[in-house]
Amino acid sequence: MPHTPKPDGSQPWQATVITLFPEMFPGPLGVSLTGQALETGLWSLQSIPLREFGEGRHRQVDDTPAGGGAGMVLRADIVAAAVDHASSSSAGRADIPRIYLSPRGRPLTQEFARELAAGPGALMLAGRFEGVDERVREARNFQEVSIGDYVLSGGELAAMVLIDACVRLLPGVLGGSESLEHESFENGLLEYPQYTRPRQWEGHPIPDVLLSGDHGRIAKWRHHRSTELTRARRPDLIASKPREK
Amino acid sequence: MPHTPKPDGSQPWQATVITLFPEMFPGPLGVSLTGQALETGLWSLQSIPLREFGEGRHRQVDDTPAGGGAGMVLRADIVAAAVDHASSSSAGRADIPRIYLSPRGRPLTQEFARELAAGPGALMLAGRFEGVDERVREARNFQEVSIGDYVLSGGELAAMVLIDACVRLLPGVLGGSESLEHESFENGLLEYPQYTRPRQWEGHPIPDVLLSGDHGRIAKWRHHRSTELTRARRPDLIASKPREK
Repeated sequence: MPHTPKPDGSQPWQATVITLFPEMFPGPLGVSLTGQALETGLWSLQSIPLREFGEGRHRQVDDTPAGGGAGMVLRADIVAAAVDHASSSSAGRADIPRIYLSPRGRPLTQEFARELAAGPGALMLAGRFEGVDERVREARNFQEVSIGDYVLSGGELAAMVLIDACVRLLPGVLGGSESLEHESFENGLLEYPQYTRPRQWEGHPIPDVLLSGDHGRIAKWRHHRSTELTRARRPDLIASKPREK
Repeated sequence: MPHTPKPDGSQPWQATVITLFPEMFPGPLGVSLTGQALETGLWSLQSIPLREFGEGRHRQVDDTPAGGGAGMVLRADIVAAAVDHASSSSAGRADIPRIYLSPRGRPLTQEFARELAAGPGALMLAGRFEGVDERVREARNFQEVSIGDYVLSGGELAAMVLIDACVRLLPGVLGGSESLEHESFENGLLEYPQYTRPRQWEGHPIPDVLLSGDHGRIAKWRHHRSTELTRARRPDLIASKPREK
């Protein structure tokens, strides 16, 4: 039920994915945190089978690249038909951002996920083969978004990653016992290392300071370890870090 | 059947995932390209249910963070038991890299995926909650790897992304009609835009040069568009681009 209103009457966050493999959804998103939130209507998921908009007996959706080269390209007219179909339902609400998952895109970041989570949802196009005809991307106003600097066999996993990153930020999704405050990127740093019982494990103790009960010292130690780790592994994050409040 | 030898007698690429949600696998990886390659034994997948190594009647796997804070941390002793179990099977071959999926990790790149794909496989640990006790990560020699600068509700989707990025690079996985040559990152640039029939679509033509039949001009145009796009969207890639041969 993609359009179940939330208990407070507001609309759930709407995820719509145009894909050749609708059977992949919800998949991992139907389990655990995102699965529970889907069941309780905090977000909705609709997958639109691109194949249904294909042409002829074989429901052809692609053709060879103009100018030659390997692979197949998703056709502009077929993709447009699927997008326009989605737009005729509420999944196509004019204010829902349209995202084409592609390694050429704007990198997904925690900040970007926060922006998307604060909005009404996302209409995503998952490519396969050599991608999608550039004309439909432009004409139907799809922003290209990349989940990382690697190539996947299709956009479906990338769409799931984007959805998961957004959904866990929606109000009510994380339980009271979990927190968004101290995690990586929320303060421009990587998260400090964590320890739990047993206190001694294979000769390795939990660092003394964490058992001291001195909250000030603990906070200081954690901030120090975060900064140290970020400097060592991701100096690029420090360089681009927004000034602290 | 995780250990089916390939037709040529070599071992398939081995993916092993330690997870609280083994039912998520193969999930999307069982479909399409990666699914066919799994069926034909080009790679193998084993998920190890962390819960089975939990303690007591409730199979407890986590505990509160030492030093306080929200959430729960996966226990060193429990995770070690799962890892050591995996290591007693061939999934723990000493030469298989151990990877803990975490936003604190080394960023996954196409180059890194190529390195991993050229190796025997990967033993992955998918975290949940506030992560895993740092001691087991160090003592069991897990390298932290991040698929991007955002936080997910667990490491499972990240493991799937890593697996997909590697598996599609394995010899025999991509059909003859597809190609790794011209895609994003393979030459340090984002991929050029693609077009296919229809030739005219909603008043937008395919760029003339692509219909010219002049392969030299087409290659030049594509390289130019690639460079232009990379400069506009990802100047960081150009800055770090390896010198051309």
